[in-house]
Amino acid sequence: MRFLFIGDIVGRSGRRAVLETLPDLRARYDIDFAVINGENAAGGFGITEQIFNDLRDAGADVVTTGNHVWDQRETLVYIERQERLLRPLNFPPGTPGRGAGLFPAKNGAQVLVLNVMGRLFMADLDCPFQALDRELSACPLKSAADAIFVDFHAEATSEKQAAGHYIDGRASALVGTHTHVPTADDQVLPGGTAYLSDAGMSGDYNSVIGMEREEPVNRFVSQIGSGRFQPALGAATVCGVAIDIDDATGLARHIAPVRTGGRLRPCE
Amino acid sequence: MRFLFIGDIVGRSGRRAVLETLPDLRARYDIDFAVINGENAAGGFGITEQIFNDLRDAGADVVTTGNHVWDQRETLVYIERQERLLRPLNFPPGTPGRGAGLFPAKNGAQVLVLNVMGRLFMADLDCPFQALDRELSACPLKSAADAIFVDFHAEATSEKQAAGHYIDGRASALVGTHTHVPTADDQVLPGGTAYLSDAGMSGDYNSVIGMEREEPVNRFVSQIGSGRFQPALGAATVCGVAIDIDDATGLARHIAPVRTGGRLRPCE
Amino acid sequence: MRFLFIGDIVGRSGRRAVLETLPDLRARYDIDFAVINGENAAGGFGITEQIFNDLRDAGADVVTTGNHVWDQRETLVYIERQERLLRPLNFPPGTPGRGAGLFPAKNGAQVLVLNVMGRLFMADLDCPFQALDRELSACPLKSAADAIFVDFHAEATSEKQAAGHYIDGRASALVGTHTHVPTADDQVLPGGTAYLSDAGMSGDYNSVIGMEREEPVNRFVSQIGSGRFQPALGAATVCGVAIDIDDATGLARHIAPVRTGGRLRPCE
Amino acid sequence: MRFLFIGDIVGRSGRRAVLETLPDLRARYDIDFAVINGENAAGGFGITEQIFNDLRDAGADVVTTGNHVWDQRETLVYIERQERLLRPLNFPPGTPGRGAGLFPAKNGAQVLVLNVMGRLFMADLDCPFQALDRELSACPLKSAADAIFVDFHAEATSEKQAAGHYIDGRASALVGTHTHVPTADDQVLPGGTAYLSDAGMSGDYNSVIGMEREEPVNRFVSQIGSGRFQPALGAATVCGVAIDIDDATGLARHIAPVRTGGRLRPCE
Ligand SMILES: [Fe+2]
Ligand SMILES: [Fe+2]
Ligand SMILES: [Fe+2]
Ligand SMILES: [Fe+2]
Ligand SMILES: [Fe+2]
Ligand SMILES: [Fe+2]
Ligand SMILES: [Fe+2]
Ligand SMILES: [Fe+2]
Repeated sequence: MRFLFIGDIVGRSGRRAVLETLPDLRARYDIDFAVINGENAAGGFGITEQIFNDLRDAGADVVTTGNHVWDQRETLVYIERQERLLRPLNFPPGTPGRGAGLFPAKNGAQVLVLNVMGRLFMADLDCPFQALDRELSACPLKSAADAIFVDFHAEATSEKQAAGHYIDGRASALVGTHTHVPTADDQVLPGGTAYLSDAGMSGDYNSVIGMEREEPVNRFVSQIGSGRFQPALGAATVCGVAIDIDDATGLARHIAPVRTGGRLRPCE
Repeated sequence: MRFLFIGDIVGRSGRRAVLETLPDLRARYDIDFAVINGENAAGGFGITEQIFNDLRDAGADVVTTGNHVWDQRETLVYIERQERLLRPLNFPPGTPGRGAGLFPAKNGAQVLVLNVMGRLFMADLDCPFQALDRELSACPLKSAADAIFVDFHAEATSEKQAAGHYIDGRASALVGTHTHVPTADDQVLPGGTAYLSDAGMSGDYNSVIGMEREEPVNRFVSQIGSGRFQPALGAATVCGVAIDIDDATGLARHIAPVRTGGRLRPCE
Repeated sequence: MRFLFIGDIVGRSGRRAVLETLPDLRARYDIDFAVINGENAAGGFGITEQIFNDLRDAGADVVTTGNHVWDQRETLVYIERQERLLRPLNFPPGTPGRGAGLFPAKNGAQVLVLNVMGRLFMADLDCPFQALDRELSACPLKSAADAIFVDFHAEATSEKQAAGHYIDGRASALVGTHTHVPTADDQVLPGGTAYLSDAGMSGDYNSVIGMEREEPVNRFVSQIGSGRFQPALGAATVCGVAIDIDDATGLARHIAPVRTGGRLRPCE
Repeated sequence: MRFLFIGDIVGRSGRRAVLETLPDLRARYDIDFAVINGENAAGGFGITEQIFNDLRDAGADVVTTGNHVWDQRETLVYIERQERLLRPLNFPPGTPGRGAGLFPAKNGAQVLVLNVMGRLFMADLDCPFQALDRELSACPLKSAADAIFVDFHAEATSEKQAAGHYIDGRASALVGTHTHVPTADDQVLPGGTAYLSDAGMSGDYNSVIGMEREEPVNRFVSQIGSGRFQPALGAATVCGVAIDIDDATGLARHIAPVRTGGRLRPCE
């Protein structure tokens, strides 16, 4: 079977590009299951239920998030009724929503999707390694899930790579998000788990992580925040990754970047 | 003219791969000026004078560093006599060595190389933006330097992109280092400065940022350091970027990733 | 001569207590010069010009600030005309306002006041040690100033103590602020500079650093911000320190805590 | 009954002062139960079994620790046989040793001691609030323990105060450690839990958090570590707190600082 994962949608530009491109990408690569990180889809901050529904309609099987998940306050409420919107599973017990789910793919396979957040240079959540271990033990690859996909939302490459090796052989793929820049280290780890440090954002790359550059540059230079961050509105590059899963083992055969539109070099 | 930049060499595996590959890469791409980040060349921690000399002999015009520059204590001494070894220029006044230098390229051009370190999630150095501004004002592109290359050693993509836009049009290229993972956002910014968030390391990518994976994974899981970090010894991928500079303007015409050997998808 | 320093005023409760107490404290201890940190005076966030003027009228010779200085946007403008409102002097060049000033005391002495911000666990400002060194060289104790007071606004005790030792003998006193908790390590350092790691806030100590406890406790527990921080409105403890300066040397003879009102053990 | 708590012993100077003073303090204040934080007792870094035994012999019922607990590698082994040496209980499952214990006091009371570590600006441990909640639910005040003491080892005053309020009424006392500076905010919180943000270190206060000042000052100034941290060897101030517990409720009646020796103002 084949996964498609698309990284953090940033603002209107990223949203439009993904909504337009997703049906096409699903068809072209014969995708069985598509996951999209939507944590910056609403003006750069969080995701509304309307946007979530639009992404679902366009072909997203599951939408993952990260540290920006609660930026739109309505998310604390509607996430309870939207099983296909995940938030990092290592938020404390009692947090609205869920960070894991088992969903049917187009080919009939049962896919476990996990959304976890790193801690290095990030919020003080529960341990992502313990969280991964617990979920993968509760729903092991092949015996309980046909395929397992992890969106590991984190800042540091060391934590992402450590997480990849930690679950190598126990999941189909672990792909990082959050830095809003695609990395070029896609590989199948020795145990069979596909890995990429960051999928990159889907947004305008003439920007600072998807935001109009003036305000972020000013903040770095002056150390004073003097305005609001606004998503950059130039043409977006849709960034993600396609992963080919062996149906017999649930492990990865191949991983390859997917990039289309906007300023970045295309990968198809 | 043409630049080659190669990212953080990690340990013996990275060193050997770079020493073997560099002459070849220089020849194949007709490189006029080559810069290599060597901050992890000595067992993962710093760089000895012997290694620095080996890199020079193999064709490095300049060697840059970062937060690991002083890991080998001898560097505090020998850097004073090695003008082509740079340390981040925004260390405080009085720091041994230098963070900037003007060097002749093969084609006769004068190349200004700057090595700067970001601050977000890093050490508390002097402001990298002020440092860049000062150096670029003192030695402007075209009037005082034919080409200008910046190794921006930093953790956060936001700070790297902000630095790129901040000097866009005033330098030939700004390339990030430090995360040890190559990014795929190579582009020429609107003002003509070539940009890449991270060149990636030259080391074994079956690892945690170039180190044998067991100890780093254990530290994340147990929060206890119980051993030493050892460089991974598998075949290294040499990671870098080639940049084509317009001789008339000193600005970039083209930037493209260079990757060869080891586990990562080759780019040539 | 005698200094009085009062730590971060938090909200209405802290403001009222300081306005009521200050004239009294000045009289009782025969104070020649009074400095107050007002960075949280306006609802916990910044300081308005009206509040600044009220503090001046109540007997503050100078008002210092810290990381919250710009929380009220008007401060970026009015600070230019208010020479006795200081912001951390190690903000980058070009920042509105000033971080140092020479002011006459009641006894006719010229007092240099410096407001500096630490970097450990704080914002990425210019080096506070370089900043202190520069100012103390430009306006040395005894030759150019009769007394020198430093408000060192910082999180970490290590950085505060290092700053104290760094300028020991070159200033009359260095007192820390920012943690909103008074420390009990008041002492005259070997070189003659009076030192206290933190003056503490002037606010309600039945709180979390001056704020109603519910929201901060919830954030630590849930890792989700779900409301606004509101200053606690219980009776405030005015916290500060009195310092006795030797007129002949400008160095400190004695330092003692001042605490009155609210929940904390009084010190008078 | 009466508790005595003494903060982080730093090096030989702090060790000697505590060993000499403790029997005296126990006698003078008629102490029923004494807890000492020993995380920096061995040359500033960790604690050996010999030192632990010396502290026990001198009258410590329990020794707590913090982020430095594993600095002496032997601690990973001997902590298993030393039930009265605690490490932060929110280390991950499987960590050697324990973070909680129920111990008999001189007056026959059963005292629960908890050692917890904060996360803000500290290591990425499991949630300290969840950990406190779990332990206090498993062993509630009065029904299962006659008194409960918490050493909350943390950097930020906000996290410490939030923890105090979080368990207010469920423990006899929560006292902070780690900053190595005593705070002056000792109080009984509204629900009856005695609170102090930091007990301070037991060490030489002519130092940077107990260490010879030269190296730490140099590191802040130069951003280069050029030597080892050495404990300062001047006379130590023993810093701590005495707490009077109501036998009927297990809650606090009174809390007062204890400070003796060295440079700080004595409190007895
Ligand atoms: Fe994002
Ligand atoms: Fe994120
Ligand atoms: Fe590196
Ligand atoms: Fe680095
Ligand atoms: Fe502050
Ligand atoms: Fe404050
Ligand atoms: Fe300590
Ligand atoms: Fe500590």
